Amino acid sequence: MIIVFKPKVKETDVNHVVDQVKQRGLDTHLVIGEEVTICGVIGDTTRIDPRQIEVSPFVEKVMHVGEPYKLANRAFHPDDSIIDVSGVKIGGDHLALIAGPCSVESKEQVIEIAIAAKAAGANLLRGGAFKPRTSPYAFQGMGTEGLDILLEAKKVTGLPIVSELMSAEYIDEFNEKVDLIQIGARNMQNFDLLKEVGRRCTKPILLKRGLAATFEEWIMSAEYIMASGNPNVILCERGVRTFETYTRNTLDLQAIPVVKKLTHLPIIIDPSHAGGKWWLVEPMAKASVAAGCDGLMIEVHNAPECAMCDGPQSLKPSKYAELITQIKEIAKIVGKEV
Amino acid sequence: MIIVFKPKVKETDVNHVVDQVKQRGLDTHLVIGEEVTICGVIGDTTRIDPRQIEVSPFVEKVMHVGEPYKLANRAFHPDDSIIDVSGVKIGGDHLALIAGPCSVESKEQVIEIAIAAKAAGANLLRGGAFKPRTSPYAFQGMGTEGLDILLEAKKVTGLPIVSELMSAEYIDEFNEKVDLIQIGARNMQNFDLLKEVGRRCTKPILLKRGLAATFEEWIMSAEYIMASGNPNVILCERGVRTFETYTRNTLDLQAIPVVKKLTHLPIIIDPSHAGGKWWLVEPMAKASVAAGCDGLMIEVHNAPECAMCDGPQSLKPSKYAELITQIKEIAKIVGKEV
Amino acid sequence: MIIVFKPKVKETDVNHVVDQVKQRGLDTHLVIGEEVTICGVIGDTTRIDPRQIEVSPFVEKVMHVGEPYKLANRAFHPDDSIIDVSGVKIGGDHLALIAGPCSVESKEQVIEIAIAAKAAGANLLRGGAFKPRTSPYAFQGMGTEGLDILLEAKKVTGLPIVSELMSAEYIDEFNEKVDLIQIGARNMQNFDLLKEVGRRCTKPILLKRGLAATFEEWIMSAEYIMASGNPNVILCERGVRTFETYTRNTLDLQAIPVVKKLTHLPIIIDPSHAGGKWWLVEPMAKASVAAGCDGLMIEVHNAPECAMCDGPQSLKPSKYAELITQIKEIAKIVGKEV
Amino acid sequence: MIIVFKPKVKETDVNHVVDQVKQRGLDTHLVIGEEVTICGVIGDTTRIDPRQIEVSPFVEKVMHVGEPYKLANRAFHPDDSIIDVSGVKIGGDHLALIAGPCSVESKEQVIEIAIAAKAAGANLLRGGAFKPRTSPYAFQGMGTEGLDILLEAKKVTGLPIVSELMSAEYIDEFNEKVDLIQIGARNMQNFDLLKEVGRRCTKPILLKRGLAATFEEWIMSAEYIMASGNPNVILCERGVRTFETYTRNTLDLQAIPVVKKLTHLPIIIDPSHAGGKWWLVEPMAKASVAAGCDGLMIEVHNAPECAMCDGPQSLKPSKYAELITQIKEIAKIVGKEV
Repeated sequence: MIIVFKPKVKETDVNHVVDQVKQRGLDTHLVIGEEVTICGVIGDTTRIDPRQIEVSPFVEKVMHVGEPYKLANRAFHPDDSIIDVSGVKIGGDHLALIAGPCSVESKEQVIEIAIAAKAAGANLLRGGAFKPRTSPYAFQGMGTEGLDILLEAKKVTGLPIVSELMSAEYIDEFNEKVDLIQIGARNMQNFDLLKEVGRRCTKPILLKRGLAATFEEWIMSAEYIMASGNPNVILCERGVRTFETYTRNTLDLQAIPVVKKLTHLPIIIDPSHAGGKWWLVEPMAKASVAAGCDGLMIEVHNAPECAMCDGPQSLKPSKYAELITQIKEIAKIVGKEV
Repeated sequence: MIIVFKPKVKETDVNHVVDQVKQRGLDTHLVIGEEVTICGVIGDTTRIDPRQIEVSPFVEKVMHVGEPYKLANRAFHPDDSIIDVSGVKIGGDHLALIAGPCSVESKEQVIEIAIAAKAAGANLLRGGAFKPRTSPYAFQGMGTEGLDILLEAKKVTGLPIVSELMSAEYIDEFNEKVDLIQIGARNMQNFDLLKEVGRRCTKPILLKRGLAATFEEWIMSAEYIMASGNPNVILCERGVRTFETYTRNTLDLQAIPVVKKLTHLPIIIDPSHAGGKWWLVEPMAKASVAAGCDGLMIEVHNAPECAMCDGPQSLKPSKYAELITQIKEIAKIVGKEV
Repeated sequence: MIIVFKPKVKETDVNHVVDQVKQRGLDTHLVIGEEVTICGVIGDTTRIDPRQIEVSPFVEKVMHVGEPYKLANRAFHPDDSIIDVSGVKIGGDHLALIAGPCSVESKEQVIEIAIAAKAAGANLLRGGAFKPRTSPYAFQGMGTEGLDILLEAKKVTGLPIVSELMSAEYIDEFNEKVDLIQIGARNMQNFDLLKEVGRRCTKPILLKRGLAATFEEWIMSAEYIMASGNPNVILCERGVRTFETYTRNTLDLQAIPVVKKLTHLPIIIDPSHAGGKWWLVEPMAKASVAAGCDGLMIEVHNAPECAMCDGPQSLKPSKYAELITQIKEIAKIVGKEV
Repeated sequence: MIIVFKPKVKETDVNHVVDQVKQRGLDTHLVIGEEVTICGVIGDTTRIDPRQIEVSPFVEKVMHVGEPYKLANRAFHPDDSIIDVSGVKIGGDHLALIAGPCSVESKEQVIEIAIAAKAAGANLLRGGAFKPRTSPYAFQGMGTEGLDILLEAKKVTGLPIVSELMSAEYIDEFNEKVDLIQIGARNMQNFDLLKEVGRRCTKPILLKRGLAATFEEWIMSAEYIMASGNPNVILCERGVRTFETYTRNTLDLQAIPVVKKLTHLPIIIDPSHAGGKWWLVEPMAKASVAAGCDGLMIEVHNAPECAMCDGPQSLKPSKYAELITQIKEIAKIVGKEV
């Protein structure tokens, strides 16, 4: 951390600030120039809030050097983390292909889709049982019954299950029934949930990026989970909110190289939610793999026009199968196994 | 809701879509033009997801007419809602003046600030006991002990208490100790919490706008609380996220007339969090009152340079007192009592 | 400017970077710490591009201290600039009230509006003769004929004229006919136009903020005009682009205190374009004055429903007159004369 | 266009609005429902401003159906446009590979880079002679001398030249010396320049997307050029402005399928400006090609650490050559020739 003082600051005022920093157990290096006085702060600066220093009337600016996260930081963990999801590896040179309906609607639906997805090459099955909906009047998901349907589909296909957890109340049930527990974009900074998930979830976590979350905030939310005890976090980019309204959100594929540079965690892409239109899924899925992502989460529905949720962004199984064929070719070029 | 069909659509395809709509118990009006075919949908369209219709290959666009919320809608409740917070009225021509530290740090601190704030004209006391922090390593608040300190300050000053609830686990405690229960920006779409708060909180709710929440989404979150049983919701604008980084967030004061047009709920403004700099608070507080807000939530701290959280955006009590003097003059001009 | 080196950088590599800086005539102060090495750069750093230093593989980060603008900077010009627009003062404790139609449509229209606006208290007349329109098929303004109509309205009312210049080609005509030359939001970074306007315009310039321009970029565009020879620049906030679509743009009133802190230039607010709805103009105009703006630019139209452009955001003269009455009361409280 | 009237509107008020529309030569279809009255407008609605109708107190909303552009619209021109840039085809199954320095700095520099870029597979040479810079004190480019250097590099390598035009003043010179004339992001809505470029440029135009421009606005700017007489427009996505600051801008690759669906114009991607960091270029370039773009514009510099502009985002020639090798493999999979 670097503290820049106001021009022409007095020595006593500088010392006052420096003392404050030292009291927190940190070391300082002071440079007093003619026009600028700066102080480098050395030590574990993750425990100091720069804004607490900035409030001083003698301080111009406080700037962080280095990142505020440790467990997620690639600097302290240079190798890619490879997360095992009930036997399916995610990260490194493994490519996760997660497919399934937005919402679980019926046993027939899920099993039919799961069989088709597996045949196409998917290695994980997604399905929403508890649904975060903007309107209290919209379909809120089948809940526990939905999870049980997913379990039946797993029995048939062997595909591990990915599903969203919305409340700490259901952690035990998810530990029992779900293989990869998703935290949705709207709960990315539900810090109490993150702590509970870190403390109590025995399964890996798929942490979606919030609609207006910076890379740093997103990684800090992963850090919450890791610091609370669960090191198995996979990040998922699903589009951010911009001024553009033609697409549901703007898919930020720069997230892939950025997350890989800053952290050792795997990153997967959800092109279905990002664009909100099925015809955007194919080009964006291919782009994601070319950019080096560790997996794709794609909505597949056997009858999108009857879907209870997000039909317009779902692919039919036949389209999904065609897509995976091309994905495999691109994956080979960028060094991923499928 | 209006369904616009693709140009040159066939009659059978139109009928297929119209039938789908009718099956959900809604009425339709069809206009078949040479170049455009449209269908007006009549009835309770809040229960239909426009995207379910849009998925049809014969449909160009589905457009909502009217708002998706009912209980919060001014159309069905033309008079301003006036919410009673332990004797302090918010809404109508009443102006709420909420003041206090970002975080509760000690009994002495809170009581000193509360006395000063009351003397300056504040009629409610704020203080964070459970703190949502971006970093797991930052101070997370004093918790229950913090609420108890607020209660002591209430005993001394008589000011009702505003504090943030982060998890449904603490609802009973908040019902007992807090007068106005805040849901923070990061939990605005924590739908499970909204439902619990609606179902179980016996006190009014202060619902902050999410960092990237549209007016409609924000009101829909109020609707969640109201539909779950608690009609006493106050909205709070605290700045939205934009490309500008000089200020912490961009304060959207257009929210005041917009919220008042669309809903009957009171709206208060938090200029402290929006700008993140204490010298922005005064001009923005005055602007908010001039624009017709129903209250101000302002961070006041007796020693901002020692604050454990958000010091740079806190006013000293003397500055706060000066501000309230000017606020009262502006309030008079726009027809608000203080 | 502060250069932060990568951890464990070698001395020779540091020296290489330091030499580069010195070759540009700047002084350096180096601190070599155990874990962090930083270099403070002293001198006229506005002439150095931080990204040129950042490209070095030994550099972690380059941070600007202080602002990249000089002529517009309040640090070097502590007093408010007061700009004289053909006898009307803008800045300091003067409040400019600019009113008129979005587009000049006819002589009768403009004169009728000008008389009404003046009667209500306006001291400057606005009207678009050259119109920047998103569509090439939309009405593009009356051009020279429009300026001549404005001149006739000036003859009748004495109100100086504000109108937008879109191309350097018309500078001589604007110098002759217009009193305050507007540069529109979409041309805020049309640098060739800014240079020409600075070099050749003999009248003050009203520089609108671009739809996605940061405060710094906006002030840098003012600096372009000033550095090219025209010191008389007035800034105008007109809303920025965000994810919110209910309003045309989000009006950023924090711009008022921020611009006043960073520069000595006057700032006026255009609440008509920001919201795009006439009923937002009144509350936002009052808010702007309460926040300390130096003027308001408001669209007034005698028949908004027939306006060729932006009717929905125009006030009728009677509404404008009512508004000005309230504005004057608020202006008094914040120390502005009208 | 569809006009939705306010609930319970009177017939006479509806007729008044309908008459207004008819007077502009358009046809109407009226549906009067119990709860909603809507009016479909048929004909060339690109010449009507929906906001002119919306201003009526009887109108709830006006919605466009279909797009406001015609010449650029794929609906009226189903085949891909293939633009010939001095012998190099862009569009269809051709992939343009534009490479070169951000700024022209010297003859030696440009020729060295041009030879290396050509050897790596580039088929067009970029170089800025007139530079749009945020600061008036930054290097503004070599101007005419810079264009002449590019011409010399063209003589040596045969690569056609891409360079940015900032003012109509230089159109004749650009027509003579430049093969593909770039309009920069900051001038995307400099409508006077767009008209002149459409009317007078004899070479194809590369139109960059504005930093906060919607797809529709961007295409409308292409429509300006086309409607003014130059049908040869290529679109270029270069990142949009969001809340994220780690990257310079957020690259919106959904632009590729969206632009291809809405228009018949080619779209190329500039990953260098989008991210602002050289290590983002490789993954984003591969992603762009996988998503189906028609070309890549990449900054290549022989000594990025000495570049006068944008060094941090430039690739060295050897890195560029490696990238092109992989690009060619991906291009093959998605059906593009290189």
